[in-house]
Amino acid sequence: MTEKLSQDARETELPALIEAGWVLDAERDAISKTFKFKNFIEAFGFMTRAAIWAEKWVHHPEWFNVYNRVEVRLTTHDVGGLSPLDMKLARKMDALAG
Amino acid sequence: MTEKLSQDARETELPALIEAGWVLDAERDAISKTFKFKNFIEAFGFMTRAAIWAEKWVHHPEWFNVYNRVEVRLTTHDVGGLSPLDMKLARKMDALAG
Repeated sequence: MTEKLSQDARETELPALIEAGWVLDAERDAISKTFKFKNFIEAFGFMTRAAIWAEKWVHHPEWFNVYNRVEVRLTTHDVGGLSPLDMKLARKMDALAG
Repeated sequence: MTEKLSQDARETELPALIEAGWVLDAERDAISKTFKFKNFIEAFGFMTRAAIWAEKWVHHPEWFNVYNRVEVRLTTHDVGGLSPLDMKLARKMDALAG
C-alpha cells in the first residue's frame, strides 16, 4: 500500500525537486512543473516515455499538452496528497526531459 | 495556407461533430470533447495515435489527460478560430476512439 509522504521525506526529498523547478501546491498537496521542448515530437516523445513508467508503477500523472509544452501535476489520490510515488515519478520525468 | 472555417462548412460539418459529442465554445471559436477509456493504456494509446496524425497534419490539439480521461480542445491559432483542420482532426479522433 502507498502511504503519505513522511515528514522526513518532505524535508529530504521535496527541496531537491523544488530546486529542480517543481512547485508545491500546499492546499492540494501536489507538485507541478511545466516542461518545454523544441517541438511537438520532443514533447510527446517525453510523454510517451513517462507514460510507460507511469503505467509500470501504476501511478499516473495529470498532464496537459499543447505543442511543445507539457504541464504536469503529481499527487496520489489514494492517500489524498503526496506519496513516495510522486517523488519517484517526478525524478524520473526530470531525467527523461533532461 | 489554412483559412478560417467557412460559413458553409460551419453549417454542414459542425452539426455532425456536435451530434458526436463535441462542444462549441463560441467565444474562443474552439471545439472540445472529453473521451473516456477503459484505463490509462487505452487512453494514452488513443493519444499516441492521434499525436501522429496531428504531427503529420501539422495541427496539434490542446489536451489534458488523467488516467482514463482525455479532454481535447481544438482550434487553429493561426486563424484565431476554427479551420477545416479542426474538423478533420476531430473526425479522426472520433474514429480512433471508436
